[in-house]
Amino acid sequence: MSDDGVLSRSLEAVQERIDTVLTQESARWTDVDPRCAPFVDSVTAITTAKGKLLRPRFCLLGHLAAGGEPECDKAVDAAAALELLHTFALLRDDVLDDSPLRRGAVTAHERHAKEHRARLLRGEPRRYGEGVANLAADLAHVYADRLAHALPAQAQAVWDETRIEVTVGQYLDIAIAAGGVADPELSRWIAVCKSGRYTIQRPLQLGSALAGRPDLAGVFEGYGLPLGEAFQLRDDLIDTFGDAEDTGKPAGLDLDRFKMSYLLSLAVRRDDRIRELAATPAAPDSAARMRELLVTTGVADEVERRIADLVDQAREAVADAPLVPRWRTELMELTTRVAYRNR
Amino acid sequence: MSDDGVLSRSLEAVQERIDTVLTQESARWTDVDPRCAPFVDSVTAITTAKGKLLRPRFCLLGHLAAGGEPECDKAVDAAAALELLHTFALLRDDVLDDSPLRRGAVTAHERHAKEHRARLLRGEPRRYGEGVANLAADLAHVYADRLAHALPAQAQAVWDETRIEVTVGQYLDIAIAAGGVADPELSRWIAVCKSGRYTIQRPLQLGSALAGRPDLAGVFEGYGLPLGEAFQLRDDLIDTFGDAEDTGKPAGLDLDRFKMSYLLSLAVRRDDRIRELAATPAAPDSAARMRELLVTTGVADEVERRIADLVDQAREAVADAPLVPRWRTELMELTTRVAYRNR
Repeated sequence: MSDDGVLSRSLEAVQERIDTVLTQESARWTDVDPRCAPFVDSVTAITTAKGKLLRPRFCLLGHLAAGGEPECDKAVDAAAALELLHTFALLRDDVLDDSPLRRGAVTAHERHAKEHRARLLRGEPRRYGEGVANLAADLAHVYADRLAHALPAQAQAVWDETRIEVTVGQYLDIAIAAGGVADPELSRWIAVCKSGRYTIQRPLQLGSALAGRPDLAGVFEGYGLPLGEAFQLRDDLIDTFGDAEDTGKPAGLDLDRFKMSYLLSLAVRRDDRIRELAATPAAPDSAARMRELLVTTGVADEVERRIADLVDQAREAVADAPLVPRWRTELMELTTRVAYRNR
Repeated sequence: MSDDGVLSRSLEAVQERIDTVLTQESARWTDVDPRCAPFVDSVTAITTAKGKLLRPRFCLLGHLAAGGEPECDKAVDAAAALELLHTFALLRDDVLDDSPLRRGAVTAHERHAKEHRARLLRGEPRRYGEGVANLAADLAHVYADRLAHALPAQAQAVWDETRIEVTVGQYLDIAIAAGGVADPELSRWIAVCKSGRYTIQRPLQLGSALAGRPDLAGVFEGYGLPLGEAFQLRDDLIDTFGDAEDTGKPAGLDLDRFKMSYLLSLAVRRDDRIRELAATPAAPDSAARMRELLVTTGVADEVERRIADLVDQAREAVADAPLVPRWRTELMELTTRVAYRNR
């Protein structure tokens, strides 16, 4: 690490903050009724799995690059809030997509449905499993929000906007998947919303607002939006070409379900055979055929070139900005790890 | 009204505040994509239906009884936040229970699933309908929270605790329904949590904290907890004996699904025939037989007596408290409307 451990120590503090909240809450509610243990643990299972802590990292970097004190308590709180907000989004997303795996483990709704079946409980296992996972998402949301109360008023508004955007983004995601709509502009907007803003720009802005530098909002928008778009394209490429070992979830899932990813929305405009394939109901070999077409038509290469351009844009946005030099360097280096996380 | 219109004017302002937020948000997101209109409207459909505004009413009353200025903007914001939080809870609950009706209209998840079927969209109608409703719940949650930012720090903690309690209460509700557990103490705890605290005590405490009178927390706990228990017992009685016209939802629904209501948890301890009936899978006539048993065994009468006792306790808690006399009277009168809302 180029940061001499400052950043990694803060990230450890973030993890500790989250662990402390969840340990306390699990104990408090298990005291009310032992059935609460598996409920709170649905949140813990995700936060203790090997996540990348990408949003806390950007929040802490935004704070440091803006001149904030290292290992600042409020920055650690805000970074922990972002990770718990992401836990909320993951729990919700896995139900929306009926995903079987998350971070290499069985998803919460699957686990609770299985337990319902195994224990021969009353009612429908699916409704129970999804219900528990959705309520665990709510719990993570409130814990996130409670940690965000330390934010100054301006950052509080950013926090609210982040949560609204990610919710609207999730809705549009399922709406266009249901409609089978190939609208590259809308898919790009969703990528900007869900990755650019939510994962990068907003965390950086929260950090810099905590350091008393709301003036950096524009700089971090210029960095976050292209890098987020690159991140989403990479995510789509990994979903399409990657294997389960890399991602902790089965490859080709989104493709099989005709989820109109940003990658796919670009590809169907580029080649009629891709459009036809995407428009037909999923066949057993459709994912393999799609992978082949994306390579032979040159779409995959074109997307790689676009990712490289976007990384350049992100780097330029911070190159001359009034940031602490050491953390600017870290931000520039991070672009590669975000856009090429499969390497 | 004994309040000369002060309270009803504030309640109108609460409704206006909610309408303004949702109108602005609907316009803003429909501008991004027209598919957002039915999404935001899932929230609006509930807030514009004839709700009782019970939580805003208690919040405003807590504020006035504590000596707060009439028609105070911050109190209206907090009251609107509580109503939007309730909208969030209703949207989530209707998916958890797979309820067909809410406030006399088709529930959000049913409506969106139907639309999915009618428009022959891709994927599974149920997953889509429930997904849209669950995301609409999240949207209502964030809008609620955004309106709650005006709260002082102490009231903010009450707000967070309210959201955690209602989530844990919802989870325990589905957990004991799945387990078919008849545990009157736990059912009472859930009633205290979901009705006593969430509907009455917390709204009153938020209002009085805004008026600078956190010292009233104990008074409002003494009023809220018994009245909430009475409210829950009444709710269970209406679910069991009431008709769809009164409640806006089909009668006997909870009973048919063996939801272990507080009423039922008391009843199974009281009579073996009730216990047996509750333990067998739902038959077409089981709701009718349960209704008959609850009457012939005297359980229904006993519950009515308990409601009367709880109302007395609530009235006593405020009778000599340091409250503005006019609003104390209103609080005492309100006990009857809350505990006997079917009259």
